[in-house]
Amino acid sequence: MTTYPQLMKAIDSLPDSLYQSDFLLTWEKSVDELRKILLVAEVLRRLRRDNISTRCFESGLAVSIFRDQSTRTRFSFFSAANLLGLGVQDLDETRSQIAHGETVRETANMISFFTEFIGIRDDIFLGAGHAYMKQVAAAVAEGFQAGVLEQRPGVINLQSDIDHPTQSMADLMQLVQHFGSLDGLRGKKLAMTWAYSPSYGKPLSVPQGVIGLMPRFGMEVVLAHPEGYRLIPDVVSKAGLFAKENGGSFKVVTSMEEAFAGADVVYPKSWAPYHVMEKRTELLRAGDTGGLKELERECLAQNAEFKGWECTEEKMKLTRGGRALYMHCLPADISGVSCAAGEVAASVFERYRIPTYLQAGFKPYIIAAVMLTARLAEPVRLLRALKRRGRPRVG
Amino acid sequence: MTTYPQLMKAIDSLPDSLYQSDFLLTWEKSVDELRKILLVAEVLRRLRRDNISTRCFESGLAVSIFRDQSTRTRFSFFSAANLLGLGVQDLDETRSQIAHGETVRETANMISFFTEFIGIRDDIFLGAGHAYMKQVAAAVAEGFQAGVLEQRPGVINLQSDIDHPTQSMADLMQLVQHFGSLDGLRGKKLAMTWAYSPSYGKPLSVPQGVIGLMPRFGMEVVLAHPEGYRLIPDVVSKAGLFAKENGGSFKVVTSMEEAFAGADVVYPKSWAPYHVMEKRTELLRAGDTGGLKELERECLAQNAEFKGWECTEEKMKLTRGGRALYMHCLPADISGVSCAAGEVAASVFERYRIPTYLQAGFKPYIIAAVMLTARLAEPVRLLRALKRRGRPRVG
Amino acid sequence: MTTYPQLMKAIDSLPDSLYQSDFLLTWEKSVDELRKILLVAEVLRRLRRDNISTRCFESGLAVSIFRDQSTRTRFSFFSAANLLGLGVQDLDETRSQIAHGETVRETANMISFFTEFIGIRDDIFLGAGHAYMKQVAAAVAEGFQAGVLEQRPGVINLQSDIDHPTQSMADLMQLVQHFGSLDGLRGKKLAMTWAYSPSYGKPLSVPQGVIGLMPRFGMEVVLAHPEGYRLIPDVVSKAGLFAKENGGSFKVVTSMEEAFAGADVVYPKSWAPYHVMEKRTELLRAGDTGGLKELERECLAQNAEFKGWECTEEKMKLTRGGRALYMHCLPADISGVSCAAGEVAASVFERYRIPTYLQAGFKPYIIAAVMLTARLAEPVRLLRALKRRGRPRVG
Repeated sequence: MTTYPQLMKAIDSLPDSLYQSDFLLTWEKSVDELRKILLVAEVLRRLRRDNISTRCFESGLAVSIFRDQSTRTRFSFFSAANLLGLGVQDLDETRSQIAHGETVRETANMISFFTEFIGIRDDIFLGAGHAYMKQVAAAVAEGFQAGVLEQRPGVINLQSDIDHPTQSMADLMQLVQHFGSLDGLRGKKLAMTWAYSPSYGKPLSVPQGVIGLMPRFGMEVVLAHPEGYRLIPDVVSKAGLFAKENGGSFKVVTSMEEAFAGADVVYPKSWAPYHVMEKRTELLRAGDTGGLKELERECLAQNAEFKGWECTEEKMKLTRGGRALYMHCLPADISGVSCAAGEVAASVFERYRIPTYLQAGFKPYIIAAVMLTARLAEPVRLLRALKRRGRPRVG
Repeated sequence: MTTYPQLMKAIDSLPDSLYQSDFLLTWEKSVDELRKILLVAEVLRRLRRDNISTRCFESGLAVSIFRDQSTRTRFSFFSAANLLGLGVQDLDETRSQIAHGETVRETANMISFFTEFIGIRDDIFLGAGHAYMKQVAAAVAEGFQAGVLEQRPGVINLQSDIDHPTQSMADLMQLVQHFGSLDGLRGKKLAMTWAYSPSYGKPLSVPQGVIGLMPRFGMEVVLAHPEGYRLIPDVVSKAGLFAKENGGSFKVVTSMEEAFAGADVVYPKSWAPYHVMEKRTELLRAGDTGGLKELERECLAQNAEFKGWECTEEKMKLTRGGRALYMHCLPADISGVSCAAGEVAASVFERYRIPTYLQAGFKPYIIAAVMLTARLAEPVRLLRALKRRGRPRVG
Repeated sequence: MTTYPQLMKAIDSLPDSLYQSDFLLTWEKSVDELRKILLVAEVLRRLRRDNISTRCFESGLAVSIFRDQSTRTRFSFFSAANLLGLGVQDLDETRSQIAHGETVRETANMISFFTEFIGIRDDIFLGAGHAYMKQVAAAVAEGFQAGVLEQRPGVINLQSDIDHPTQSMADLMQLVQHFGSLDGLRGKKLAMTWAYSPSYGKPLSVPQGVIGLMPRFGMEVVLAHPEGYRLIPDVVSKAGLFAKENGGSFKVVTSMEEAFAGADVVYPKSWAPYHVMEKRTELLRAGDTGGLKELERECLAQNAEFKGWECTEEKMKLTRGGRALYMHCLPADISGVSCAAGEVAASVFERYRIPTYLQAGFKPYIIAAVMLTARLAEPVRLLRALKRRGRPRVG
């Protein structure tokens, strides 16, 4: 196990280039930057475990904007903010004056006078969520430049139409724990596969996040889905490129079994086909309720053709030694538990239930690390000071 | 008046057995444990009055889950958490993904990574609220054992179908103030009586909480209600047992006047009959709106037969010296103020209005004391340190 | 630029008469008291800019009650509270038990056990908002006197039917920055004028707040509106009186051009006519939906007669040197942006957009200064101590 000084030294050796930046897509960050976030998250985790306070904001807000339901990401964001001493405030767009014709540019500044971070979930409309986050980021950057804001709030993507970077980084952190080190991921096979679900319209951001991130650390990533369930083409081609650049590999197959064969890690998870999400976005914008109903019917009928895409005990036997790590961002559609037939057999899920909880548990630390690296020019100096100060978190 | 050192010594003399425990029913706690909570609450109250900070959490969340409306308990919980330095977060089940088939076991862990306490109000369904709290407690206990959670969140009952322990403990704290000491309660007569209300479906937890707690401190408790308004039989039989074990007494009568005769304390408060709550639970579960309407009609008609069960000036004259302490958990149904005819005459309520506010004011301290004793192995050490440190709360 | 010691000395020279007071109407405060708030706000602003923590509450709540939508005031209130170390809690009246017949007097105490401030927005009903705030203030004052509350919560008007004092004081703070000093306002002409909007029922509190405040600092205030759009008569007469007493001037005209002529500052902003707000209050109380629809129709038709009341480039040319400062409390109805035709031409607004953001940015500091001066007997002692302590706000 690595010691504090080793971790601090490792952090120190990486560039402090995340300062004043947003966290929207992992592929906008260098591998070194991502490593830095992982290391800072690990130090924060250890300090908390050792009952050492990591409070470093005496005041300041973390504002969340949730345009879709959320439990675990909401609590992860609030928990991360609280760990560092920030107050949290949700912008409930239905109760604000935004409907009165206020612009995004204006609102972004109005909520940011004392705001350090704006966390946004916006994954309903394809082509919209990421664009909205960029708009908010540009607005607060302008406000900061113009002296309206005395600090530059960092925008944190809590799930967009394109990426879910706090999720994929938490996933990565769990893989590091599982394989003992980041280098331990090299050559390991990860199957990111579609799975059947009786629900419809699930975002693409989780699989996209995973294939856009894991090949950068040398993993052998296989993306599997039935014909017609492809992801955003640009992200898929990025995944291939990243694999090449970083000694990993990436391929797309149309068989769950093929993906599972010899896999060290499996990540079976449902999503809607890209073209359905496109169509759905059009219909939502047009307010075409009839069209949406019809699309849902079609899509669920299409899904039903692929009920065989379930993570069963039989399929798990295909994995390396029959003991691949099962991952899920939760909540999973568990056959016989949360639905009649779903993404995963109840016995498989139950066996990996605690690991999926552990996986989720890394998210608050990732978010806190994103915050620290974005707001401090030299985060390692603070971490060393916190360790030295050793103020108890409780008691 | 007791001094700090005396209070600290008294706390020190009682076992530290509340550590890592939940707070669901007062009768799951020993008399010594309840005394410890009262004493810690009293120290916290004095420190705050003396402008000494009692902040002892540098980070951490207190999460609330309200399945029924609440003002005073909600603010009491938030205030208690804030007094100790915790951030607060409400789990709004309508805005989370819980509806998507997520299990209680999973959600409980997902909201608890940095959570110290989960406060729950669930008093709508008979047989459900307490069971739900036990489920949540078991889930976080499992998560803690499995290393998912780095701390064991304590579950705090903010009103269930069975007990309302933060209310009854606040009531007890007021009685201690009123009679000068806990020993001063011995032999005092408390009338916990049903009272007429034009509303329907009021929970049983307040009267149950009172009869399940006060006999343990030697009070002479009389429960009065019309035929057909009985409480959960198991709690009533516990009350009798507690009286026997602790030198108090307990009896059930069917006359408000009989209960008031010579009483030192009266607690007139409406509730729904046990069998109505059972029937209502069935109908609510079945979504039987027609049945619910009919039940409400019947129940209100039945209530109307007992309009004489009002706490009037005449009845107050029956109490010891005509000057019994009037108690209510608020809000009361005040005749001619909040309804045409209700639980209490306006002149009686107005005379005791400030005492009922004082009664409510003990709740945040009780909750804070529950928190401290559940999370610190030796709470007295912290209290002494806080006193010594003497950091101003304001300024 | 003034130094810290100069600012501290200036604060020290003014009476500490705001201690334990509410902040409901600026005209209930003396000019010296308002100057004190401005100076404290300025010191808080500098300390934050210099990364010096101004946290001075170790615990305590700031409670907000919003009876109308709000984004910027909501965030300003939360930000101010957070800057001083207070937790924030919104009283959502729809989710509390207030509907169960609880009185304002009771609720005010129930939410205030650990509460330092209650911020209220209540601007829908003419004759109601200010009255409600007074009721809440009287209730907590009584609770404090009776020992129910251990501190006297201050009530802060976050917009009533009569005044919007945190807005007008933020406006004043911007004018001080703009003209270099408070004395710099003497003799400057400010045009507070009605402007066309396609919406209806906008509160009167902003124009009333401005005309009730600026004449007290020697400004030449001109109020302009079409016939039939008058404000509350009592406030208008106060404005005249204040001008006389403080060396300013005040007059009412019915031409936007006349108001703009030679103005140093223009504040074009829509509001509903006083008599319409009165009528609307009656209809709202009566729940007369048909009547409200009809009133809206009439009012919008009346508004439409005054589409010429737009702040255009042409009108801006009439101001002193064509370069008056344009002010708005936001969000503005911008022609061609948020509506077809509105209060201000897009090019004018765009030119002054950043200044309006800066204007809004003073509000959290004003609120924090109101808080500090209401809760500390000698705020300057704390400010000096904070400066001396020099604890970093971040890092």
